[in-house]
Amino acid sequence: MAPQHPRVVVIGAGFGGMYAARALDSASVRITVVDRHNHHLFQPMLYQVAGAALNPSDIATPIRRTLRGEAHTEVVLADVASVDAAAKAVRMVDGSSIDYDYCIIATGIETSYYGNDEAWAPLAPGLKTLDDALDIRQRVLLAFEQAERETDVARRHAHLTFVVVGGGPTGVEMAAIIAELRRYTLARDFRHIDPREATVMLLEGGPRILPSYPEELSAKAKEKLRGLGVEVRENMLVSDIKRGCVQAAGWTIPTHTVVWAAGMRGSPLLKTLDTPLDRMGRANVEPDCTIPGHPEVFVIGDAAHFEDPVQGILPGVAPTAMQMGRYVARVIAGDLRGKPRTPFKYFDKGQLAVIGRGQAVAAIWKLKFSGFVAWLIWAFVHIAFLIGFRNRILVMLQWAWSYFNYERGARLITGTEEFPVQAAEREVRG
Amino acid sequence: MAPQHPRVVVIGAGFGGMYAARALDSASVRITVVDRHNHHLFQPMLYQVAGAALNPSDIATPIRRTLRGEAHTEVVLADVASVDAAAKAVRMVDGSSIDYDYCIIATGIETSYYGNDEAWAPLAPGLKTLDDALDIRQRVLLAFEQAERETDVARRHAHLTFVVVGGGPTGVEMAAIIAELRRYTLARDFRHIDPREATVMLLEGGPRILPSYPEELSAKAKEKLRGLGVEVRENMLVSDIKRGCVQAAGWTIPTHTVVWAAGMRGSPLLKTLDTPLDRMGRANVEPDCTIPGHPEVFVIGDAAHFEDPVQGILPGVAPTAMQMGRYVARVIAGDLRGKPRTPFKYFDKGQLAVIGRGQAVAAIWKLKFSGFVAWLIWAFVHIAFLIGFRNRILVMLQWAWSYFNYERGARLITGTEEFPVQAAEREVRG
Repeated sequence: MAPQHPRVVVIGAGFGGMYAARALDSASVRITVVDRHNHHLFQPMLYQVAGAALNPSDIATPIRRTLRGEAHTEVVLADVASVDAAAKAVRMVDGSSIDYDYCIIATGIETSYYGNDEAWAPLAPGLKTLDDALDIRQRVLLAFEQAERETDVARRHAHLTFVVVGGGPTGVEMAAIIAELRRYTLARDFRHIDPREATVMLLEGGPRILPSYPEELSAKAKEKLRGLGVEVRENMLVSDIKRGCVQAAGWTIPTHTVVWAAGMRGSPLLKTLDTPLDRMGRANVEPDCTIPGHPEVFVIGDAAHFEDPVQGILPGVAPTAMQMGRYVARVIAGDLRGKPRTPFKYFDKGQLAVIGRGQAVAAIWKLKFSGFVAWLIWAFVHIAFLIGFRNRILVMLQWAWSYFNYERGARLITGTEEFPVQAAEREVRG
Repeated sequence: MAPQHPRVVVIGAGFGGMYAARALDSASVRITVVDRHNHHLFQPMLYQVAGAALNPSDIATPIRRTLRGEAHTEVVLADVASVDAAAKAVRMVDGSSIDYDYCIIATGIETSYYGNDEAWAPLAPGLKTLDDALDIRQRVLLAFEQAERETDVARRHAHLTFVVVGGGPTGVEMAAIIAELRRYTLARDFRHIDPREATVMLLEGGPRILPSYPEELSAKAKEKLRGLGVEVRENMLVSDIKRGCVQAAGWTIPTHTVVWAAGMRGSPLLKTLDTPLDRMGRANVEPDCTIPGHPEVFVIGDAAHFEDPVQGILPGVAPTAMQMGRYVARVIAGDLRGKPRTPFKYFDKGQLAVIGRGQAVAAIWKLKFSGFVAWLIWAFVHIAFLIGFRNRILVMLQWAWSYFNYERGARLITGTEEFPVQAAEREVRG
């Protein structure tokens, strides 16, 4: 590889970044993939880690392993502080920097609490990283342990109340998996409480859950959630989250376990770019996924606000990121051969949300599916996309196993330096 | 279950506690199992989690799930502060307490640094809990990441030096698994370093590794470790561990990754008992595993110092704990039927230590095995004992998989709130 080949720096090894890097490796470029984690995360199944159904390593693969075969690609574990578009350099938090000829920003989105980050974030974790998922798993499992030891009826009930905020696909999936955990997996494991009595609430601020889906499927999803004993409440915009309770639309709901699946915003790195952002903090990109005035800086995936003339604003889902990643690789390879750029075309593969064991809703082109058929589509699509053969087999096995007996493989409470119940109590009561 | 049945409190759900509880359930007693973790840990394979070969949940099962079928047993997740033998009560850190008729203390041992706990523990984690294992896994994987980014040759070499202190079975297993990780799993994953060049040292204070094994097997083990490129150094008593180096027998070894497998001491809970302890802080027990003057208080497993008239001091291994657990259950059931107690008899099943892929040493009765045969014995024995069918299948699959291609399934760096490299750097550089 000649050193004069242009350098492409890819920031973020999510779906967008990984697909861009892999597609670029055959071009005459040197590629550097920078990420703050050492693993690529299969985010659509992250809720299964939070629900104690899968292990972290079932849905995460080391970036180095995935890119091992790409001879022109190096991987750097580092935290990016800023992108200096004028100097064409990526600056790290540790002071080092990498110059680029092309930069692909694929840093995704992060959890946002409508301006209440400081107060709400410690009480209501979001679900974006593996650590988030392990945090939620720990809180949910500890809540049952605390209820088992609590003799006061009201306090016990608060421990057995789980509130999921936000009725998008993540919220629906989280509510369903907690509902199944309490109804099946934990049902017979306690002596003083009946986990099946636990309350699982899904609070949606708007008039219906899954607002981006056809109305018919929102209704189906609600029906399926009710079948699992989830209390679905629409028009319940959360006004406050405090230690021990959630407030929404006049209600005060005593609970110690809140999962936040309501707000998202673009990665803060985009603010260092001096380029127009949308209301959510995502970069407004041109038809070729670049930012205005910088044809060498691409923003792709969830971090991009892309307005398609026909399809409107593209949804922040994995297929968008993957397609953009491959598209940007083609654009760069084309540039080097002097080919003119053509605009990005999004191929809509539809939407899918899972509602527990063997139930899902799907809107694919003009077709709508619900129930077991939709679940089979979901399972097939997700297994097909899981990167790495080994993960595929193990995940399939674990699914098959838990499908037949509702056992959960990953019911471990770990990761606290001090004794977990006390830590949780200080958190909750303190 | 009549409430007047005697209550047995079991403290600790390791091998001793779990075997006692399960064997007791058929007797006319009420059983309470107290543990500070929600899972039983298959400790003999903990080094595989530290070496990124297995997932935490592959070697840990929820205590509640394992004891679900035992109708007279309840499980309490709590941290025990003291055992009040005079009042026959177990006191928790949170102020609550449980009265008992019989108490079985099975709290095991913990890592000890010969009086240097405060200075050495943050620099050289031991290997007793899942969190320990994840900590070591993170340090080892981050060391390679830091070496990849380090341009100074000496500093890079320090990042690529791994020191395991203590040549007992745990130290031997840890050194071998790190050696394999660097030689096979990570070999082709970096661009600026060759992980195969990493130094793995095993420091033993005495004249030979595996001191409790026959000399012949110590020599075999050393030969096998050398085959993996491990530098085995005997008579190297560690005198100091500082940020960035280990000192032993006049040597100063620059390293950022130290694993401590050298010292152990009895659980501090035993000190609250007002009973004689041995040098290691284990309780000296009577032939029926009780403490002097308290026929209702048993100490079993690693926490017990049991001197057998023929076999000497019993080794702190899983079979000792399991046999004591079952024995104590029989004693209590016998008491209730007015049967006199007979002393505990230990059935020696031999010793086994693994040295990487397909290699082990074993001393069973008068027989000595080494190499692949010993490894097969090890694999068979350990799978047979893994509690829970599901774990058995998954662990076997993962072994089979990694046996054929050296991939490691659990190469994830997680669990740091802040960016891991920075955290590690602050840790290392001070």
